[in-house]
Amino acid sequence: MTTLPTSSPLLLPTPLGGTLVNRVGRPGHDFDPAELKGLPRLELSDRSSADLEMLATGAYSPLTGFLGEADYLSVIERLRLADGTPWSIPITLPVAREEAGLYTGRVVLTRGGEVVGTLDVQERYSARKSLEAREVYRTEDPAHPGVAALYAQGDVNLAGPVTLFEVPRGNFPRHHRTPLEVREVIEARGWRTSVAFQTRNPIHRAHEYLHKVTLELVDGLLLHPLVGQTKGDDVPAATRVKAYEVLLDSYYPQARTLLSVYPAAMRYAGPREAILHALSRRNYGVTHFIVGRDHAGVGSYYGTYEAQEIFGNFSGEELGIKILKFEHTFYCGACGQLVSPRTCPHGREHHLVLSGTRVREKLRAGEALPAEFTRPEVAEVLREAYAAQG
Amino acid sequence: MTTLPTSSPLLLPTPLGGTLVNRVGRPGHDFDPAELKGLPRLELSDRSSADLEMLATGAYSPLTGFLGEADYLSVIERLRLADGTPWSIPITLPVAREEAGLYTGRVVLTRGGEVVGTLDVQERYSARKSLEAREVYRTEDPAHPGVAALYAQGDVNLAGPVTLFEVPRGNFPRHHRTPLEVREVIEARGWRTSVAFQTRNPIHRAHEYLHKVTLELVDGLLLHPLVGQTKGDDVPAATRVKAYEVLLDSYYPQARTLLSVYPAAMRYAGPREAILHALSRRNYGVTHFIVGRDHAGVGSYYGTYEAQEIFGNFSGEELGIKILKFEHTFYCGACGQLVSPRTCPHGREHHLVLSGTRVREKLRAGEALPAEFTRPEVAEVLREAYAAQG
Repeated sequence: MTTLPTSSPLLLPTPLGGTLVNRVGRPGHDFDPAELKGLPRLELSDRSSADLEMLATGAYSPLTGFLGEADYLSVIERLRLADGTPWSIPITLPVAREEAGLYTGRVVLTRGGEVVGTLDVQERYSARKSLEAREVYRTEDPAHPGVAALYAQGDVNLAGPVTLFEVPRGNFPRHHRTPLEVREVIEARGWRTSVAFQTRNPIHRAHEYLHKVTLELVDGLLLHPLVGQTKGDDVPAATRVKAYEVLLDSYYPQARTLLSVYPAAMRYAGPREAILHALSRRNYGVTHFIVGRDHAGVGSYYGTYEAQEIFGNFSGEELGIKILKFEHTFYCGACGQLVSPRTCPHGREHHLVLSGTRVREKLRAGEALPAEFTRPEVAEVLREAYAAQG
Repeated sequence: MTTLPTSSPLLLPTPLGGTLVNRVGRPGHDFDPAELKGLPRLELSDRSSADLEMLATGAYSPLTGFLGEADYLSVIERLRLADGTPWSIPITLPVAREEAGLYTGRVVLTRGGEVVGTLDVQERYSARKSLEAREVYRTEDPAHPGVAALYAQGDVNLAGPVTLFEVPRGNFPRHHRTPLEVREVIEARGWRTSVAFQTRNPIHRAHEYLHKVTLELVDGLLLHPLVGQTKGDDVPAATRVKAYEVLLDSYYPQARTLLSVYPAAMRYAGPREAILHALSRRNYGVTHFIVGRDHAGVGSYYGTYEAQEIFGNFSGEELGIKILKFEHTFYCGACGQLVSPRTCPHGREHHLVLSGTRVREKLRAGEALPAEFTRPEVAEVLREAYAAQG
């Protein structure tokens, strides 16, 4: 198992820590599958399975596995790994305290009972759930989905380097690419600058506007919707990806756009998660990352601009990826175009703003979404998805 | 006479050379007007008068006067002043060879016979017109308006520091601001980032699109139309400024926009002039400068992207101002919005593109310009200007 050199004629951004971690190794190549017999087995949750993939493919470089206690506390308390590298969310593997003693040495990781990888346990330590909730999620309210997940998980974290046997290609194999594979596309297309955009929401013209604004200045756009675990009331990933596909077919320059899924699970940690999202996109090889209002937020736990302001904790060099901070965007009838409060001088009476709730109501009622709000092709995908639910 | 310190809490970009040159001094304050009696007098051309203002107000910092021979040759041959500072266009004061001997020591500069300033002659040297044409204008074709002006001017350049007695407020006193005055507005408005836009053409929605794209990412917009001498067939400055006024009134966020005139004369030197325009805007205190296709070009003397590529001769630190390179922009019926080839996947049949010639034809014929091409308020200003000509 090696780390891959990342030099390139295009000088893509170096991964965090300098090299792209690669902990993907197939049994029989990098080690003997017979070695796994008799080892303790640990069934992964949705989130831990996503974390395993993110770690092993280098999306979470420089991490090579689940965090040990020193890194865990350092990330929580000072937004950095113990060695000072920026990091915002502890990537941990929690197990129930009563089972923790089972896991020593090499542990076999399973998913639905299938072996997917291994963990070499180097540490076991107690999670500080209250501290973690307060610092990472900025609330101990169990109604917060990230806090709820934290409180529901085991009390002991296992730590150590992981191995993933095979990159899962999930539900979107055509759009599923590791950081190295995304880097290869960027190099092949010659994008000297590129911007990643993530949303867990369906794509509307307000998002398209951000993409187009950015594409006027940056060579390529990585549309990188998060398809890992989300809240039950978020629009399903399949519908969101389908909406991207039809939108790209009709309205985006093919050579400058890459749709690829981001397999991480949502934590809804707002500002802290915005940093994780940005650092991870640096590992995918992009130079810019879009952070809008209330990025990765939920409810009203975070201030509108906190997810933008938190980047002020780091120097540009430390981040290694440029943050593009955008305002709320919407259609203005007086301007006759998509705008934001930064560009439009007109009053609210000219603005077409629909809340997520209102959009869902319209879709449930089978009503059309205005073309200034959603491209007709996307509206049709959403309408069909709601009709199928109906 | 002093140079002004430019420290500020906002950390506006330092002027080129570190301090903003100020060579504006009123008779009776900085020196005795009686001293001017009996001195040789030199009547300035339109261009030299504009250069005097640009030099004295610091718009051409670090220059304090017309270039001496070492700087002149260095700028022509290696795009830098003799000390290595980036500079692209020789700012010279040409006089006829037969009169050159008259100008020694302090020379009184006049404009329409009125005393406007002084020049302390430190050097007189022969212009290398052929070399200057080839290197600066990249052509010796006398049909090029910049080359024509070069060939028509005197053969000897006077060099030395200038003094301007009073900043002329020209035909647009409400919009006429020195670099220091623009810096004060930027500071007062708290723009941490700002972008300057220049055109010598009337403002259309294609330009507005560039402004709005940029304003989504940058705090403030300095609309900085060039109002010095232009070719006879360019749209007059008064019409262009009026068009900006009506456009800003209806479509731009007031607090983020500043309309200010740029009193330089056009040289039509394309790539070389793009550098001058950018360096000068750094002196005005802005952080970004827009360079579109064929910036400051004329006819087909320059390649479409040469004015963007030439900035590759300098490091970002040397330039001290970020260059935003834009493509040709236009309305696309299939996108339903302003776009560029960077953002639009549709064929030409969907694009509304009108040449300058076609626009002038329509205006002369009293025809309406499409609202997707020109805001109706601007179209009305242009229509009236053409009707008044007719």
